[in-house]
Amino acid sequence: MEPRFKKVTIVGMGFMGASLGLAVKKAKLAREVCGLGRNMDRLKKARSIGAADTVTVDIKSAVTGAELVVISLPVMMIPVMFREIKPFLTKDTPVTDMGSVKGNVCEKTAMFDTNGQFTGSHPVVGGEKTGAASARAELYRGGVCIVAGSSKAKSKSAKAVEGFWKALGMKVMYMTPQKHDAVMAGVSHLPHMAAFALVNANEENVRKKKDAIGTGFKSMTRIAASGGEIWSEIFLMNKREIMKQADRYMAQLGRIRTMVEKSDINGIKKYIEHSKKLRESLDK
Amino acid sequence: MEPRFKKVTIVGMGFMGASLGLAVKKAKLAREVCGLGRNMDRLKKARSIGAADTVTVDIKSAVTGAELVVISLPVMMIPVMFREIKPFLTKDTPVTDMGSVKGNVCEKTAMFDTNGQFTGSHPVVGGEKTGAASARAELYRGGVCIVAGSSKAKSKSAKAVEGFWKALGMKVMYMTPQKHDAVMAGVSHLPHMAAFALVNANEENVRKKKDAIGTGFKSMTRIAASGGEIWSEIFLMNKREIMKQADRYMAQLGRIRTMVEKSDINGIKKYIEHSKKLRESLDK
Repeated sequence: MEPRFKKVTIVGMGFMGASLGLAVKKAKLAREVCGLGRNMDRLKKARSIGAADTVTVDIKSAVTGAELVVISLPVMMIPVMFREIKPFLTKDTPVTDMGSVKGNVCEKTAMFDTNGQFTGSHPVVGGEKTGAASARAELYRGGVCIVAGSSKAKSKSAKAVEGFWKALGMKVMYMTPQKHDAVMAGVSHLPHMAAFALVNANEENVRKKKDAIGTGFKSMTRIAASGGEIWSEIFLMNKREIMKQADRYMAQLGRIRTMVEKSDINGIKKYIEHSKKLRESLDK
Repeated sequence: MEPRFKKVTIVGMGFMGASLGLAVKKAKLAREVCGLGRNMDRLKKARSIGAADTVTVDIKSAVTGAELVVISLPVMMIPVMFREIKPFLTKDTPVTDMGSVKGNVCEKTAMFDTNGQFTGSHPVVGGEKTGAASARAELYRGGVCIVAGSSKAKSKSAKAVEGFWKALGMKVMYMTPQKHDAVMAGVSHLPHMAAFALVNANEENVRKKKDAIGTGFKSMTRIAASGGEIWSEIFLMNKREIMKQADRYMAQLGRIRTMVEKSDINGIKKYIEHSKKLRESLDK
């Protein structure tokens, strides 16, 4: 059977991009996976692990002939990269991304997207890993991918992008870019902020009391080992929603702190039992 | 070879106590493990999984003949229970606990501890599980146990308690009760507070957007499924240090929030890279 795509181009061969290349090859979705990047040594490493068939630093040759382009770059770069690849796309080539922010990304990309080729995506997988060396073919399978757009009037691009993620074994959810950013500010961006702050607040213990640090602290701060470049851009590209979430979170912390100060043991117990029930509902 | 102890009594057969019973039996540390509790049905279940040889709701028969007593109860109950078992101990019987707070527990216990029998312990293991049904014999092995006391002038009780934890495969650290509480407020109590608040701040998403919630949020909030009774007592028994940590944490959150508000991308990037380095040092 012929693969669905003759050529899929992945722009950016970091952890997410290289994992995508491995996944596409494994699912036999494309005859050729082409990896575009800026550093030939790193690109060759990605190719050597099987994340791409061809690699290049040349935009034109990377994109020419591609039947799908996936931009796997930090969020601020996505609209810029779209503008750079656009001259080499046919007017029907679907383009998507994997960024953690959708409102700002879709809005800025739309300024250059005269043919409606771009559909925003956010595969809700990954974690704190960086670099092609950590890439895994199974990263996407079984996960959820949020596609930013209306679930009713799907564009040609949106249909192609949805089919692509489904072919990789993902469950696709549609959300407007704005809804996506509001939800992710709460369930992903805020937790990262909380983890960064938690590690910083414990700098002395981390340096001097390593042995006393148990699995609770470690699993809670695992995501604090995420990359600064990626996450500083996410924070600024989703600034308004993240500030809203930070305020909500500090208000909640203030609530518990006040109950502790007042020795309100029943209030604290109720608060914790409520958290417990909510958290347990996620494992069902 | 004869086991080290003829009889070890565990007061409280919840997750921690039952796991301890399993561990003691597996290590052949005691000829008899006796489980003391309030509910005979639950105690029989603990016995049926092998966490105790004998179980009882009668304090006198539980403690009589014990060569070591481990109190595995919520922190507020520990001094109270010590007072109740004291009349049935020989004056040399070492008694310890497994509570997450040491200052308040050791201080209050000392009021009844005329013979210096009590040494505080805190095995830094466990997590959010509750109930004997989840107990595991391997919970303690390889973990760290903080023993509250001076590392120099060890009492007879402290030596016995230290030997007990080591025989279960734990690494023992000595800290003063005050130092223990200051460290744990940062690396354990604050993370729990942070997780409870994070789940509460996301109540709507948890209820309505389950599918969009990834592994980051889940691993970060795993400890939010901890028990309300246990944790409300920990918060109040370590009130002063926990409030200090809550203030430090909110100040750190305020710092990032301000950088986001000012679009200070370099500041945010540095802050995250600093967290990343600190967090990664824990895995080395």
